[in-house]
Amino acid sequence: MKRVVCVFLTVGALAWGQSNPASVAARQWRQAHEREIMAEFVELLSIPNIARDKANIRRNAEAIAAMFRKRGAQAQLVVEPDANPVVFAELKTAGATRTIVLYAHYDGQPLEASEWLNPPFTPTLRDKTIEKDGQVVPLATAKFPLDPEMRLYARSASDDKAPILAMATALDAMKAAGLKTRSNIRFVFEGEEEAGSANLGRILAAHKDLFSADVWLICDGPVSQTRQQLVAFGARGVTTINLTTYGARRELHSGHYGNWAPNPAMMLARLLASMKDDSGRVRVPGFYDGIAPLSETEKRAIADAPVPDKDLMAELWLGGTEGAPGRLLDLIQQPSFNIRGMSSSRTGAGASNVIPATATASIDMRLVKGMDRVKTVERVTEYIRGQGYFVTDHEPSAGERMAHAKVASVMLHEAGYNAVRTPMELPISQEVMRTVESARGKVVRWPTMGGSVPLEKIEDTLGTRTISIPMANHDNSQHSFNENIRIQNLWDGIELMAALISM
Amino acid sequence: MKRVVCVFLTVGALAWGQSNPASVAARQWRQAHEREIMAEFVELLSIPNIARDKANIRRNAEAIAAMFRKRGAQAQLVVEPDANPVVFAELKTAGATRTIVLYAHYDGQPLEASEWLNPPFTPTLRDKTIEKDGQVVPLATAKFPLDPEMRLYARSASDDKAPILAMATALDAMKAAGLKTRSNIRFVFEGEEEAGSANLGRILAAHKDLFSADVWLICDGPVSQTRQQLVAFGARGVTTINLTTYGARRELHSGHYGNWAPNPAMMLARLLASMKDDSGRVRVPGFYDGIAPLSETEKRAIADAPVPDKDLMAELWLGGTEGAPGRLLDLIQQPSFNIRGMSSSRTGAGASNVIPATATASIDMRLVKGMDRVKTVERVTEYIRGQGYFVTDHEPSAGERMAHAKVASVMLHEAGYNAVRTPMELPISQEVMRTVESARGKVVRWPTMGGSVPLEKIEDTLGTRTISIPMANHDNSQHSFNENIRIQNLWDGIELMAALISM
Repeated sequence: MKRVVCVFLTVGALAWGQSNPASVAARQWRQAHEREIMAEFVELLSIPNIARDKANIRRNAEAIAAMFRKRGAQAQLVVEPDANPVVFAELKTAGATRTIVLYAHYDGQPLEASEWLNPPFTPTLRDKTIEKDGQVVPLATAKFPLDPEMRLYARSASDDKAPILAMATALDAMKAAGLKTRSNIRFVFEGEEEAGSANLGRILAAHKDLFSADVWLICDGPVSQTRQQLVAFGARGVTTINLTTYGARRELHSGHYGNWAPNPAMMLARLLASMKDDSGRVRVPGFYDGIAPLSETEKRAIADAPVPDKDLMAELWLGGTEGAPGRLLDLIQQPSFNIRGMSSSRTGAGASNVIPATATASIDMRLVKGMDRVKTVERVTEYIRGQGYFVTDHEPSAGERMAHAKVASVMLHEAGYNAVRTPMELPISQEVMRTVESARGKVVRWPTMGGSVPLEKIEDTLGTRTISIPMANHDNSQHSFNENIRIQNLWDGIELMAALISM
Repeated sequence: MKRVVCVFLTVGALAWGQSNPASVAARQWRQAHEREIMAEFVELLSIPNIARDKANIRRNAEAIAAMFRKRGAQAQLVVEPDANPVVFAELKTAGATRTIVLYAHYDGQPLEASEWLNPPFTPTLRDKTIEKDGQVVPLATAKFPLDPEMRLYARSASDDKAPILAMATALDAMKAAGLKTRSNIRFVFEGEEEAGSANLGRILAAHKDLFSADVWLICDGPVSQTRQQLVAFGARGVTTINLTTYGARRELHSGHYGNWAPNPAMMLARLLASMKDDSGRVRVPGFYDGIAPLSETEKRAIADAPVPDKDLMAELWLGGTEGAPGRLLDLIQQPSFNIRGMSSSRTGAGASNVIPATATASIDMRLVKGMDRVKTVERVTEYIRGQGYFVTDHEPSAGERMAHAKVASVMLHEAGYNAVRTPMELPISQEVMRTVESARGKVVRWPTMGGSVPLEKIEDTLGTRTISIPMANHDNSQHSFNENIRIQNLWDGIELMAALISM
């Protein structure tokens, strides 16, 4: 059933896409150069790109600047102290009356390499997904044109080097077809988005001349779960904390001290469990205060969007959802409180009969418009205090631990940023919609994307609106191990970027 | 204050200990041979001894058999299919009317080597504990006699190779002093106690001729937290399970799916939190059913025992205890439900913004007399079902996951064994008490030790009573990283073992 729907949509996109000359040119170019495009992508994905790995981050930035210089853009690294470089590249257009920024990021989420089936920085083509037992297809011997259902596995294959490769390829196609830009086009590639974009505001503020524009188009995230092109007019904000509970100074033998020594894993479980009710609603007082309501247009867009829930549940082996009967698209308009990781002593082969000394949950909170990230963390901290805890923002001292029966620390992991939402009715919103549809057919419109991008930093610093236009497949395992991109999404993305660049 | 108490106790022990000739001989021998004793211990501790590491387990068994053969005992490895060897050594005594088994185990708890300050199988002497910034003292240049407050760090330094070394050294001392045994003495060293003693019953049953005795003296565990010698007339049983909750088939981007995809870490937290009340009492129906009450003698022993709680809280940086106002010694007479480890996706540097796919808690339950380990696991499983979960004892299939909103698995990690308790009034109990006091001064008597030893397998298979006589310091980090033994405890243990061997 699902496959039939996808075929229909692909045909639909073909029909509409023909109306955009840059997209048509992009397709022709891609069909003739798949091998070269893949080779360049593999080279880019082979450079490790975790934000704290400064040496490799620099290599990425230089490689990307070189890619755009090769395509005739003026490229430079914008460097501020203690920040990863932002790659800036520009195509100036004589007589242009507006400036458009295309944004992506070249850093990737942290990872544990041992969890990956292929090493995360050894891009690996498979004929199907790993879940479907996809087999490795060496690029050297692969048959071209590629089966568009193939997947390329590597960290940032989807998130977020794919748009960078797609933009560069779109420039090749436009040049070959003799198509010119109409706006000044600025490419901005951030190097620490997955580390919370802590320095983006500062970098933008220090170089307003480079970064100001009429609109920022954010090329990050996945398209709709129905594989339809998505345009999102906002994104949830995010802030990340580490919550740790403390037991005895050292791990204790669970026999000799079990029942007597406080178990921090149980303390953590009790705290976390108390923070959400059965329906998934966060019980921290004030958590939902101040949320800006959706406009009528936004409500209509949600009502018009396809409902992928049932297919998604089957794809993900789910027998239920957290916010049921709420639908995915409605639920991501709400803030979320998510345990992204939890640990205490050891499980598996290294586990032993101890009472742990500490237990930690790493928590990300997704924020919607009207919520403040600082206030949200304060409310969570206050809530924990209300449960009888002495709460510190540092590793508690021996004295602090001895003075209180229940001790926890809440440490900000990534300060993050707030949510923003661009009204769908604005002329620029309408024009972007039309452009995307001319390349990709009928699109799905969402007021807010579930994921987070540092729109706030852009809007607050530059006073510029942002609109998100993703290209990755939804089933890309982004942020997890075995991240991948579906080849058809890469091809579609090239056509999309050509349309945006020629806006 | 605490230090003053310890000094007093040491003096007390000296005074009493002089009444046992074998102990006196052991002390004299040890004082003259500290360097050689340490060298032999280091050699033994250098052989890795995790139960699943079959090759090294064999090396341990052979080394220990050789140690006792060298001392004139008849030693052999008792090998059954799929089981780690039991080292058996015997000193036959002409005309003896009884047989005493001294039991210890030579395997150690599983570990993560990266957590250790020195490699776990590179025994390392320090002038003080690591907590007190103890510095490494190379054995080659150490001053002898050693400062008795020094610590030797290595896996099984306390648990449970120390008694093996102490027994072998006691034999040297007795031989040098011309002291003879009065009973037949059998040494039994198990090789998979820390893996749940799954095969011990089978091995004992197959070799009753070797293992039958009038009493088994169990040399495992720590002495009282006041550093006084302990005799324990029972031990809690134990059974270990892994409880896993399931979310989506793969980790999901926490932005795009947060609020919609079930979070197995939160599911696990809610389950665990519901299983104990605020006072630490287990809420699983029937958990406490059938517990055998303490006798008047046992109650009196507890009332007479020192109360280390306050000193322990300071030592462990605790501002409160789980079962407060209950005291440690009372609380370990009750069964416990302990989270020994917990994990879900990643925390720390490798953490990323995902909704985990699974979450696991490793749980050990300590059982007291009258409880059945199988029934206890069943009750926990039933309880989880009662919380609306579909519970499997295997990795759930795609179909099982899709058919149920809440899916968990409960897998038996180590079947374990039940608790047993030997009456304190028995003649053999009284005689063992007198013997230990003749070596170590006034001892603390506990009806039940908090930790677990496979007494049930011994008593059920052989019909023999068991009494536990530990020698390790309580602050030994056994089962955790940085396990160690306090040198004075090693010395005391040699005197203790000499007294037991000459019983």
